[in-house]
Amino acid sequence: MFYHVKNLQYHAKPIRPDPIFAKKLQEILGGQFGEISVALQYLFQGWNTRGEEKYRDLLLATGTEELAHVEMLATMIARLLDNAPVGDQEVAAKDPVVGAILGGMNPQHAIVAGLGAMPVDSVGNPWTASYINASGNLLADFRLNLTAESQGRLQAVRLYEMTTDDGVKDMLSWLIARDTMHQNQWYAAICELEEKENIVVPSTFPRSLEKHEVAYDYYDLSGGTESKHGRWAQGPSMDGLGEFTYIANPKPLGKKPRLQPAPPYMHNTALPNPPHLPPMF
Amino acid sequence: MFYHVKNLQYHAKPIRPDPIFAKKLQEILGGQFGEISVALQYLFQGWNTRGEEKYRDLLLATGTEELAHVEMLATMIARLLDNAPVGDQEVAAKDPVVGAILGGMNPQHAIVAGLGAMPVDSVGNPWTASYINASGNLLADFRLNLTAESQGRLQAVRLYEMTTDDGVKDMLSWLIARDTMHQNQWYAAICELEEKENIVVPSTFPRSLEKHEVAYDYYDLSGGTESKHGRWAQGPSMDGLGEFTYIANPKPLGKKPRLQPAPPYMHNTALPNPPHLPPMF
Amino acid sequence: MFYHVKNLQYHAKPIRPDPIFAKKLQEILGGQFGEISVALQYLFQGWNTRGEEKYRDLLLATGTEELAHVEMLATMIARLLDNAPVGDQEVAAKDPVVGAILGGMNPQHAIVAGLGAMPVDSVGNPWTASYINASGNLLADFRLNLTAESQGRLQAVRLYEMTTDDGVKDMLSWLIARDTMHQNQWYAAICELEEKENIVVPSTFPRSLEKHEVAYDYYDLSGGTESKHGRWAQGPSMDGLGEFTYIANPKPLGKKPRLQPAPPYMHNTALPNPPHLPPMF
Amino acid sequence: MFYHVKNLQYHAKPIRPDPIFAKKLQEILGGQFGEISVALQYLFQGWNTRGEEKYRDLLLATGTEELAHVEMLATMIARLLDNAPVGDQEVAAKDPVVGAILGGMNPQHAIVAGLGAMPVDSVGNPWTASYINASGNLLADFRLNLTAESQGRLQAVRLYEMTTDDGVKDMLSWLIARDTMHQNQWYAAICELEEKENIVVPSTFPRSLEKHEVAYDYYDLSGGTESKHGRWAQGPSMDGLGEFTYIANPKPLGKKPRLQPAPPYMHNTALPNPPHLPPMF
Amino acid sequence: MFYHVKNLQYHAKPIRPDPIFAKKLQEILGGQFGEISVALQYLFQGWNTRGEEKYRDLLLATGTEELAHVEMLATMIARLLDNAPVGDQEVAAKDPVVGAILGGMNPQHAIVAGLGAMPVDSVGNPWTASYINASGNLLADFRLNLTAESQGRLQAVRLYEMTTDDGVKDMLSWLIARDTMHQNQWYAAICELEEKENIVVPSTFPRSLEKHEVAYDYYDLSGGTESKHGRWAQGPSMDGLGEFTYIANPKPLGKKPRLQPAPPYMHNTALPNPPHLPPMF
Amino acid sequence: MFYHVKNLQYHAKPIRPDPIFAKKLQEILGGQFGEISVALQYLFQGWNTRGEEKYRDLLLATGTEELAHVEMLATMIARLLDNAPVGDQEVAAKDPVVGAILGGMNPQHAIVAGLGAMPVDSVGNPWTASYINASGNLLADFRLNLTAESQGRLQAVRLYEMTTDDGVKDMLSWLIARDTMHQNQWYAAICELEEKENIVVPSTFPRSLEKHEVAYDYYDLSGGTESKHGRWAQGPSMDGLGEFTYIANPKPLGKKPRLQPAPPYMHNTALPNPPHLPPMF
Repeated sequence: MFYHVKNLQYHAKPIRPDPIFAKKLQEILGGQFGEISVALQYLFQGWNTRGEEKYRDLLLATGTEELAHVEMLATMIARLLDNAPVGDQEVAAKDPVVGAILGGMNPQHAIVAGLGAMPVDSVGNPWTASYINASGNLLADFRLNLTAESQGRLQAVRLYEMTTDDGVKDMLSWLIARDTMHQNQWYAAICELEEKENIVVPSTFPRSLEKHEVAYDYYDLSGGTESKHGRWAQGPSMDGLGEFTYIANPKPLGKKPRLQPAPPYMHNTALPNPPHLPPMF
Repeated sequence: MFYHVKNLQYHAKPIRPDPIFAKKLQEILGGQFGEISVALQYLFQGWNTRGEEKYRDLLLATGTEELAHVEMLATMIARLLDNAPVGDQEVAAKDPVVGAILGGMNPQHAIVAGLGAMPVDSVGNPWTASYINASGNLLADFRLNLTAESQGRLQAVRLYEMTTDDGVKDMLSWLIARDTMHQNQWYAAICELEEKENIVVPSTFPRSLEKHEVAYDYYDLSGGTESKHGRWAQGPSMDGLGEFTYIANPKPLGKKPRLQPAPPYMHNTALPNPPHLPPMF
Repeated sequence: MFYHVKNLQYHAKPIRPDPIFAKKLQEILGGQFGEISVALQYLFQGWNTRGEEKYRDLLLATGTEELAHVEMLATMIARLLDNAPVGDQEVAAKDPVVGAILGGMNPQHAIVAGLGAMPVDSVGNPWTASYINASGNLLADFRLNLTAESQGRLQAVRLYEMTTDDGVKDMLSWLIARDTMHQNQWYAAICELEEKENIVVPSTFPRSLEKHEVAYDYYDLSGGTESKHGRWAQGPSMDGLGEFTYIANPKPLGKKPRLQPAPPYMHNTALPNPPHLPPMF
Repeated sequence: MFYHVKNLQYHAKPIRPDPIFAKKLQEILGGQFGEISVALQYLFQGWNTRGEEKYRDLLLATGTEELAHVEMLATMIARLLDNAPVGDQEVAAKDPVVGAILGGMNPQHAIVAGLGAMPVDSVGNPWTASYINASGNLLADFRLNLTAESQGRLQAVRLYEMTTDDGVKDMLSWLIARDTMHQNQWYAAICELEEKENIVVPSTFPRSLEKHEVAYDYYDLSGGTESKHGRWAQGPSMDGLGEFTYIANPKPLGKKPRLQPAPPYMHNTALPNPPHLPPMF
Repeated sequence: MFYHVKNLQYHAKPIRPDPIFAKKLQEILGGQFGEISVALQYLFQGWNTRGEEKYRDLLLATGTEELAHVEMLATMIARLLDNAPVGDQEVAAKDPVVGAILGGMNPQHAIVAGLGAMPVDSVGNPWTASYINASGNLLADFRLNLTAESQGRLQAVRLYEMTTDDGVKDMLSWLIARDTMHQNQWYAAICELEEKENIVVPSTFPRSLEKHEVAYDYYDLSGGTESKHGRWAQGPSMDGLGEFTYIANPKPLGKKPRLQPAPPYMHNTALPNPPHLPPMF
Repeated sequence: MFYHVKNLQYHAKPIRPDPIFAKKLQEILGGQFGEISVALQYLFQGWNTRGEEKYRDLLLATGTEELAHVEMLATMIARLLDNAPVGDQEVAAKDPVVGAILGGMNPQHAIVAGLGAMPVDSVGNPWTASYINASGNLLADFRLNLTAESQGRLQAVRLYEMTTDDGVKDMLSWLIARDTMHQNQWYAAICELEEKENIVVPSTFPRSLEKHEVAYDYYDLSGGTESKHGRWAQGPSMDGLGEFTYIANPKPLGKKPRLQPAPPYMHNTALPNPPHLPPMF
């Protein structure tokens, strides 16, 4: 269960409105690696955690913080949109600055949202749960979380480079610092799990059931040999259970498939002389 | 540029048709972490790589292999659908096995695809590029790749548990082994980059520009203290640049936001007595 | 900013697992009118509210409650999935009950989520922000909110009819009661706004600018006259500014449009003898 | 069954082309609350109506009118795109007006549609049936319809503010008037149903089956007390069956959930010492 | 502008309810090549047609007929859902037929639509405008239309094979006949345009501007030579302007690309020793 | 199985960067009819082909070529983005050219992709498998393929008109030529199949089972008679099995539908006096 307080977790106040930047900032609110993604991803992972209370707590605490970041960004975007102009864009083009603002805005910020933030990314794609996952395997999920914080901090840093507004920069520098923490945090949790299990997810599948003979081969299926000298092509494997081998010219191991004709009730292409195939099964 | 040979990279032949399992197997073909996702993700990352030929080669070689996995899964699914029954499902229900087959199939396998594989997941959602990313930052992307192989191997292992068909198991055990390699491989590449840079992505943003004072605080925003004793709440941070601190009761640092009224041309809610706000900027 | 406590807002514990019902229950978690929709819709409306603190508080308080409902449903679904069987579905079909369970489950609950809840609806469509809106006009938005609670309660009631599990029914009867409150609440807020403004949204657009002559005509464009005797076809209009008029045979008021040929650089259909149109502008 | 006449329901002719406004106008053609949404929503509601011929007729008549609005908007957009320039945008930028036009257009209007209207919104998201609903409960659906007309009229009014073209304004003022009618009309139909049933949807669920003790409580889960004095927090409830109560500090009523460990065949996180939980069921 | 009559274009009445078939029949209502797709596709193509009144009329007439097919299918689906059971599916599984019905239904037909048709396909994906196009080039679009009728008739035929209900078969045999007409019709219109223009779309692009030397080469990029003896690999080209040539071993004509390093403000992967590339431009 | 070589199939090098054109060029990479669509569509069609090795080879060879086109476009787009500016757009607007570049770019090219290509279209919609199909009926699918090449070449030609960069034009003129080949090729394959079968897909459905009496009627459901003199309204039908007939005033052949009331457990609209319908079945 949740409680809300009206104060923001950190300041979210620009020096001046900037509806063009409002559009761009949507990326880390409602984009693939934005705050809605991490908030819901961590919460779902937490709610689904079965029996590891330490990790459940970690997930729910961090997911709850991300909700505060959603709020900060929504607030900042609404303020960047303060009194954003609307009006005839072609006429406005005569004043290059007004024209640029009208041309650079997301038109839905005015038409749909009345100068408010939206759960969309920087080109207007609505947020979708296709972005996130909660698999029940914490090592798999913490890797997804570390990834999300890596991509998210990268995007925040790029946005930092795109503005000259000290208020926006102040907020971004705070969010970037939290992303630093969250990368450190998932990294720490991953180390803990990798030590207990193994680096290969899931660690519980008996290795005897996989085709061990291809489990450490590097197949170079793209011309050139630049990748030959990478760590992945020689030496003991990272999981300590094999030896990397470089295969310069990987050959197919399977046959050329021949599929059975479709039954007539499918009305696939009519075969005038359907081949007399040996029975497949 | 690509070349195709007709032989499969590995066998993809079930012992007998099983249209219900065909539906499930779609998950690792066209789902969030299926083979289409990794194929296109690695290829786009490779094509966008600027100046690191070793990594570019690694990405393109692996992406090219994943195309072969897409082909293997598509072939296996088409064979699992061989002569799949259609027909009146209510009538069929009188024979529990036929009824179960009709009820458990993806109806689009018959109606839309004529007993062929589709670029969709196990519940029929079409594959979408929202699943993937190529950020230009290789550490961020290799983490996404390690994640994809972790989630993907987990799903393949679960599917392995769901079938008794030795042909399907044979193919899955081969794919699972390749996922073992690919987890090892991205892990190796990540280690290399983390050594050169730092574990925090992106490593090139000057730390002086982030709010260092909150970069290592663990905020416990969910009741209980189970997460207090985790590695993320004490000791030196994983990036070696700070000290984890546990904050039991994080307080808001920002103010309660008050937004400006909207301009009249937005036709937001009419305020009979609009408050006389101090100018916001 | 948000705080989380581990206790649930209300109990969410079934008498026994039921993975089939888990699939259905997803509708009110991650469907069009599910709890994710109302939580994010109310929060975004609240964050975007400009200057009406009473309504902002109402929106944020209710949105925060809906987050607790998301948590309850996620917990219930995870429990309904406890020890859900996987395995060869065709084999299982020999036991009708196990067969029915395997056939009726969402396969992603096992393959993707490891027996956890997902942010999807009852057929597996991922939640999308296309479902929601925050327009900046509170009367428009409160109507959307009343709608969402109406559709949501309807779906919860239908789900109540579909289960015999007293634990599930207990939780649903509690959620249904909260939907009763929320319908009442948005209704109250709507009445307040309609009294101050007018029932037509937005009330601030000067009526002299709309074509008053068609603002109260009921056009019966479908054969038959069943709708003629409705309240909407006679008597004073609901906004008190006009008189409903029934038009049995509405005629077109516009001309037959003739579009200009496309410029050659568009490579639309080639017109051998492009008509010599009078200039259109 | 439908018949089409070539004349438009009302004029749809701009004074001059304006490809930038064409992009914006797409919102009320193919956006969440655009004309495609209302047309298909009303028609599906009508086709699904079981036994209320008066309402069925109302729905089908109005849905049929909305098809004419789709046509008007498509025609207007095609004309706004007449002879829209294409060409090198960077070169064009030297002429600010041409540059603004090229920069402000939806590039798909030229590349994909050959200067025609598209079933998309103002940022190019394709129309999706996720926007609409037909629930079988007319009160729930009429509320959705009133909402759609409210949001739709709001957007049309905002677009009216964004153009100086008298032809466009003429068409919009006509559409705005029809939205006035349609808001009045659904309002009238809602009043009729609310009188017969009750304001709470669905009215047929026995109130004794819901948890009456929480059906009229207002939970203030967001800091501050601004919402305390609203109508929703005191006095008789709007449905006449309860009394609103303001709860300042809502407490959780449920327990802290503890989920069962996952079965081994799920390969969720390995628990070295799985807790000996009391059996959950 | 449109008019609606209440009579259906053709009968849509099943012999008995069949909620499982209702789910399947959704494919040709709301799927990729269903009736919503063709209705909106033809109407948008018609509305966007610039100056070819004969084709505009053809498109609008046919699009209007497709609306009637949407109505027929919606009506049929609602009737197939008459009194569809809901209830505890595991309990129901004891009666194999009831269990099969519950297991084979789309749960949204009950939970969301109250036993009505939905604008979705046979697995529940909402209809999306991504399915359709109106390009402004009639030959390109008529080919899309012929395709849609081909895929649509194929699906209708497959559905015909899946039912034993004479009422459903009666309706399908009528729709299949209309698809026969529509395939014939677009075929006729295509022939007319191909005669006037050329078979290659668009015919207006000067052939001198394309690389004529590769315009008729068949590149066999997949092992084996089965395709060598096809019509496409020898003889005069179908457009009469070239000669097909079979190329057994197509070579790359481009160079190995080397991309420039990213500028530092992108924070892509840090290159410790960025290569001294020759200037690229 | 696939092999990759580093050389491009053809050159993909612009004369100078042009981030605005990069955005537009995305259409034929990741749009509805872009190279990802044709690559995956042809490959899936090939993998699903049952027993027609000549066509299977044709599909796989062409699908493999399209992968090379994806690579060329991705490379071209990355180069068009070389050193693309970021920065404060409002400030930049003072320099019209820099302002136009910033305003015309896809912001995700910088924020998300670090100046790399993305699997999206020209307005940023992610590629989706909803665009493509593999039906198992080769004539239906080859028509889809001819359509895709027609729409694709049209879009490439339009893009050719939009740039003055000779490097871009060089690549486009090569791709346009390949589209010429591919249109010719699918045309040839279609002719072959139409000769063997019939022009109506599927040819295997017994014509006696369709309602022959409406299989060749042209229904003019849109006012005016422009379409009366088309080939589709008179003369022998294109399939040689009927005679086109023009029907000026098509009448409904079905009855006005009356649906059964919903069962009470659906909680649809309450009918105070439910009509006593004759039993429907």
